[in-house]
Amino acid sequence: MPTNAPLNRKLRMGLVGGGQGAFIGRVHATAAILDNRAALVAGALSSDPAKSKASAPDYDIPPDRAYGSYQEMAEAEKKRADPIDFVSIATPNHTHFDIAKTFALAGFNVICDKPMTFDLQQAEELVQIVEQTGIVFVLTHNYTGHPLVRQAREMVLNGDLGEIQAIRAFYIQGWLRTRLESTGQKQASWRTDPKQSGAAGCFGDIGTHAYNLARYISALLPLEVSCQLKTFEPGRALDDYGTAIIRMENGALLTVTASQISHGRENDIFIEIDGTKASLEWHQEEPNKMYVRKNGEPHKVYTRAGGPYLGAAAAQATRIPSGHPEGYLEAFANIYTAGYEAIIQRSTGQRFETVNTIYPNVYDGLDGMLFITRCVESSRENGAWRPLRHPKLRR
Amino acid sequence: MPTNAPLNRKLRMGLVGGGQGAFIGRVHATAAILDNRAALVAGALSSDPAKSKASAPDYDIPPDRAYGSYQEMAEAEKKRADPIDFVSIATPNHTHFDIAKTFALAGFNVICDKPMTFDLQQAEELVQIVEQTGIVFVLTHNYTGHPLVRQAREMVLNGDLGEIQAIRAFYIQGWLRTRLESTGQKQASWRTDPKQSGAAGCFGDIGTHAYNLARYISALLPLEVSCQLKTFEPGRALDDYGTAIIRMENGALLTVTASQISHGRENDIFIEIDGTKASLEWHQEEPNKMYVRKNGEPHKVYTRAGGPYLGAAAAQATRIPSGHPEGYLEAFANIYTAGYEAIIQRSTGQRFETVNTIYPNVYDGLDGMLFITRCVESSRENGAWRPLRHPKLRR
Amino acid sequence: MPTNAPLNRKLRMGLVGGGQGAFIGRVHATAAILDNRAALVAGALSSDPAKSKASAPDYDIPPDRAYGSYQEMAEAEKKRADPIDFVSIATPNHTHFDIAKTFALAGFNVICDKPMTFDLQQAEELVQIVEQTGIVFVLTHNYTGHPLVRQAREMVLNGDLGEIQAIRAFYIQGWLRTRLESTGQKQASWRTDPKQSGAAGCFGDIGTHAYNLARYISALLPLEVSCQLKTFEPGRALDDYGTAIIRMENGALLTVTASQISHGRENDIFIEIDGTKASLEWHQEEPNKMYVRKNGEPHKVYTRAGGPYLGAAAAQATRIPSGHPEGYLEAFANIYTAGYEAIIQRSTGQRFETVNTIYPNVYDGLDGMLFITRCVESSRENGAWRPLRHPKLRR
Amino acid sequence: MPTNAPLNRKLRMGLVGGGQGAFIGRVHATAAILDNRAALVAGALSSDPAKSKASAPDYDIPPDRAYGSYQEMAEAEKKRADPIDFVSIATPNHTHFDIAKTFALAGFNVICDKPMTFDLQQAEELVQIVEQTGIVFVLTHNYTGHPLVRQAREMVLNGDLGEIQAIRAFYIQGWLRTRLESTGQKQASWRTDPKQSGAAGCFGDIGTHAYNLARYISALLPLEVSCQLKTFEPGRALDDYGTAIIRMENGALLTVTASQISHGRENDIFIEIDGTKASLEWHQEEPNKMYVRKNGEPHKVYTRAGGPYLGAAAAQATRIPSGHPEGYLEAFANIYTAGYEAIIQRSTGQRFETVNTIYPNVYDGLDGMLFITRCVESSRENGAWRPLRHPKLRR
Repeated sequence: MPTNAPLNRKLRMGLVGGGQGAFIGRVHATAAILDNRAALVAGALSSDPAKSKASAPDYDIPPDRAYGSYQEMAEAEKKRADPIDFVSIATPNHTHFDIAKTFALAGFNVICDKPMTFDLQQAEELVQIVEQTGIVFVLTHNYTGHPLVRQAREMVLNGDLGEIQAIRAFYIQGWLRTRLESTGQKQASWRTDPKQSGAAGCFGDIGTHAYNLARYISALLPLEVSCQLKTFEPGRALDDYGTAIIRMENGALLTVTASQISHGRENDIFIEIDGTKASLEWHQEEPNKMYVRKNGEPHKVYTRAGGPYLGAAAAQATRIPSGHPEGYLEAFANIYTAGYEAIIQRSTGQRFETVNTIYPNVYDGLDGMLFITRCVESSRENGAWRPLRHPKLRR
Repeated sequence: MPTNAPLNRKLRMGLVGGGQGAFIGRVHATAAILDNRAALVAGALSSDPAKSKASAPDYDIPPDRAYGSYQEMAEAEKKRADPIDFVSIATPNHTHFDIAKTFALAGFNVICDKPMTFDLQQAEELVQIVEQTGIVFVLTHNYTGHPLVRQAREMVLNGDLGEIQAIRAFYIQGWLRTRLESTGQKQASWRTDPKQSGAAGCFGDIGTHAYNLARYISALLPLEVSCQLKTFEPGRALDDYGTAIIRMENGALLTVTASQISHGRENDIFIEIDGTKASLEWHQEEPNKMYVRKNGEPHKVYTRAGGPYLGAAAAQATRIPSGHPEGYLEAFANIYTAGYEAIIQRSTGQRFETVNTIYPNVYDGLDGMLFITRCVESSRENGAWRPLRHPKLRR
Repeated sequence: MPTNAPLNRKLRMGLVGGGQGAFIGRVHATAAILDNRAALVAGALSSDPAKSKASAPDYDIPPDRAYGSYQEMAEAEKKRADPIDFVSIATPNHTHFDIAKTFALAGFNVICDKPMTFDLQQAEELVQIVEQTGIVFVLTHNYTGHPLVRQAREMVLNGDLGEIQAIRAFYIQGWLRTRLESTGQKQASWRTDPKQSGAAGCFGDIGTHAYNLARYISALLPLEVSCQLKTFEPGRALDDYGTAIIRMENGALLTVTASQISHGRENDIFIEIDGTKASLEWHQEEPNKMYVRKNGEPHKVYTRAGGPYLGAAAAQATRIPSGHPEGYLEAFANIYTAGYEAIIQRSTGQRFETVNTIYPNVYDGLDGMLFITRCVESSRENGAWRPLRHPKLRR
Repeated sequence: MPTNAPLNRKLRMGLVGGGQGAFIGRVHATAAILDNRAALVAGALSSDPAKSKASAPDYDIPPDRAYGSYQEMAEAEKKRADPIDFVSIATPNHTHFDIAKTFALAGFNVICDKPMTFDLQQAEELVQIVEQTGIVFVLTHNYTGHPLVRQAREMVLNGDLGEIQAIRAFYIQGWLRTRLESTGQKQASWRTDPKQSGAAGCFGDIGTHAYNLARYISALLPLEVSCQLKTFEPGRALDDYGTAIIRMENGALLTVTASQISHGRENDIFIEIDGTKASLEWHQEEPNKMYVRKNGEPHKVYTRAGGPYLGAAAAQATRIPSGHPEGYLEAFANIYTAGYEAIIQRSTGQRFETVNTIYPNVYDGLDGMLFITRCVESSRENGAWRPLRHPKLRR
């Protein structure tokens, strides 16, 4: 299997989470194998051992590797001759840290859903653990996996946009317009529960995606943030709307706005970036095109796989010819695929990049937790500026 | 002429401004007569008397009513048997107040470009003058003239959107990406000159449009503002980018973002409004459609003149069948047309509405100057909250 | 008035048609004066003399020039010292010829709505009359007045698209989905009446617009046509849907499709043009942008007044800066404005172009009648190929 | 594995085609396993035995099931205790028939790429073989797998659109604008070679997709066709552009237009359908939305997974929440998934639908070959009407 050379075999994947009623677990499982480079071989699919084992056949996991808990999985897999190469964590936010820590300390590579941890302290500790253990750590900020998002970052790094001065990032949804959590709907329940979701609701769940997208494309470091969080739906424990202004180190201004209460809006994460030489606009709901504009010139629409004007980053992240839409799953898979390269490098004793990775990593997870934490603090203090500088952040 | 009943004649228009190199003067002149209900009969087209007279033929103004100054025009017209019915002011910002005051005190109705005055004090004084003189005062916040913008306001007032909780208003341009003012370009020069434009640049010129659009559609009163203004183009004297967060009386959050440095962006004023029952989205660059959304239902695209689902306000503001695009001029003309009703009412001794008008009025001008003033203050104080409450503001 | 130099006065317009219930008469009257270069001074607004006179005040026409019939108008105006410079014909199709002939023979320039005549024979006769009298004849195929349509033609003529090989032109409406004519609705009644509309319904009314747009932009001459016309609405006397295939002289294939029975479709005339070097796409409902595409390059969006990449033809046809939408009225006005240049040239004894005009002319009217006639013939003969060659057609 | 109940195991897939340089083979392999209900276990990946075996590891096919030819594969698999459940055929058109016939006669279910065969005679023979052998036969007209396409068909069948009267189907590409085949590019070479592709080029490759989409959604039977095929690229052996008019049994008019020479157009298959009650519009390049329109009502945008207004067919065909784009792969997978239901039913001795299937079947393949054949005949005879009636066609 040349695509996993020099490992010459499929990667073995373990999954934590993904049991009945879950959404994101199935996405991880599907994305991970989309390019036929990995196989899901083990799982701790639920915190309820019986449910975990009952869900295993859905994922084609053999009974002997359907574990009752993630701890059991980590221990058992460690002893196998053919252990998993990595574990994917697709559980509610508050459990990420313990699971990631357990597997990292056991030497396993980790692919973790976002936000990375429950709070900032956990994030800082996880950074230390990842650095000490030397594992590969991938954070599935999946929107960075879109070919045109990678193209955007490459264009910024190449200087095609000049100096970046203004960024407007948004994530607009409507599905929590009513108190869906009061109906027992699983997705709504944990996301609006401070004990599972963390200090922020909407801003932790999706505001952090918009922030990450801005950071990923712009490669600018943040300085400080002023934030307003709102809870519009009466009785809800966490924010369901918010807007933040972030001053960047180079003087640029970034605004991040997130909503879960905008009727009929589905999953509208979009971004506009203004540079001194050109501007960019990309919308996740139509991910196969991106607008690039310069004053006095026709607006340009870049399309996925549209031609040689696209750089290497976009080309690597696409599977099918232009005009055939790729979407959410493919972008998710691109995160996995990029992680696989690092996993294979580590497995075969090669050096691998840990900081300036094309995939979001543990430092991006820290970045996100710092952002959430400071946003919540700022909002409580009437929008006071709170620092976002941190020595561990990467461009 | 039934459309001007019971006046039974065309309205007589005077124009201040609009000489060579001007853009907005021609727009006023064209919009004013689009429905053949007025004629431009007098003008003080430039602050340079010779230039003023030289420009008169372009506007079909007879020599004897081509005045050397607006003061001369006000005096002379007052003495005529067939004086102008109203004056339109299409000059740089810093001159609006004196001109408006002069004509108001002479008893003439005034149609004035925005921002209404140079500063807040002038705005408050002008409110007093308008109230005392009892003239009709129309402010050409032209984007409120679009049929679907009026539809949006009507829907909000009817409660179709429920309680309004979040508004995102934008005005994104790119034409001042370079220091165009250093080339002597007239439009750029006065707009970036604090002596002509006022305390704010981008926010005074276009941010105020976005704010006005939000206020007009939502009919919500403001409470306080926190603002960040930026000057990205080195050497420019006024802001060319900014973002403001406004807390509304009912608890809603409004964000206003304006840019003049976004490459290739032309005149992209757009707004998104979230209510408890539905959400709205409208873009000026495609003004003939508006999105209305409710969770779980197909997105709806309202089109100008699209059918009986539209209310009276939209119907009155459209001339041609659906699918034939109307644009900037027609919206501008709708402001004039609405003003004409009031002018005719005043001329024929009828009562006329002065506060809750369908056209922007002197109170909206005050609103705009208050907004600009507080935004500049807040920005200077690192984003401190500044009050926006004012007894004269209207819904 | 320099814009009418060397005539140095406004042009005087007469209007035939436009009485109560009319749509297109008002459009002509508004478009004609949009740039303040003409004044409507005379009219025969209805075939009913009383109604004609009663409608005159709506158009600001003085009583002594509100005529009871177009014949009376032609005679009376001829005798005046200040006669009209041109007459605009905005009546149902079957009356165009007699009116145009009357005014042409009286020496008046004519601006006529389309289709030009009731049948092909009339069109050929009118060509002769126009040639003999030497008048200016303008046909208001208004969609050719859009700046980006003119840009498209200029690009084709410059060879920017290479050889044109395939064209797809459409005009899709829905308003005649029901038998609106049975309700007495005026617009529907004459358009579906063979005695007023001519041999074709939908194809005469709007198919001919799509065909004209293709001919105007491509500058290709037609060879022969095969056509299918359908009447889907039971009881309707004329076609309400149709599609035609036209072989062009250079081997290109043009398809024209028109519908009046497509639910919810408003006025969707659009065109796609394939050349060997590039392709074009333009939609009337969003007239301020046009797509230009080349394999392997980003799609380009040209915008009205978007920059120096636009040619002279587009630049001349636009009034306001980019991003402020222009629409139907402005395009209509551009046809008038182009006609005015010729009218002034004739009035001042200069030579003027009569064939390769930027505005649609009498030869385009002939072209349209030939197209309609042959389409109807072909459709009756089961789609047999019918010749479209004619010595009078222009590129 | 409940999703394959009552079979209770993954389906075993064999693949013919898909070797180096192939595009569609990889798509089949990926789509087939997207829902983890099948595994690719055997393959004859190339007509060159050495290349076939060399490609096997790319697909994770064990060496002992990497066959040197499809004949060898059919024989060997027949003898196994765990034979493949179905074979997927992803080879050039001229080989489909022999391969399908071989596997069908051996009792294997077949999933075949389109067009189904090289000519009409083969198609008719294959119908007979499928009927005689009783296998499941799925044709991957993949665009019918999009949730909103299935929604469209369901709406038509429910009568939501009323009687269907006009359909406009298009497939516009640009990639064969130059003679790419002369460079040896594999995709271009076989598609433009009459010996591999069949009697039609563009119309066989993509025109047939547009026709199938129209037939699938409308459920109308065809009567006769008039067609114009063109070869614009000099030296090319097959058509690269064409348009066809199809009269349907109920009196409706269908137009099908396909291009491979439209600069910059990528994969733009789209359709507009006019019914007496409503109209529909869907574009493959933005497959997650569909326009539904009724006169006098706001245009409606249906979105994939957008809410309970969608029917069962759409709901079954979607995996992830609304607003996360699904695309080409997911639609392709939906064809497979629907086929799996029938394969499992056959394997477990249940009855299964063979004619009115939700997936395209052998009768649709016949339909396509009949369409291609008659289009080529009609085009050769100057657009003469050629019959499309056939007793085997399904609604």
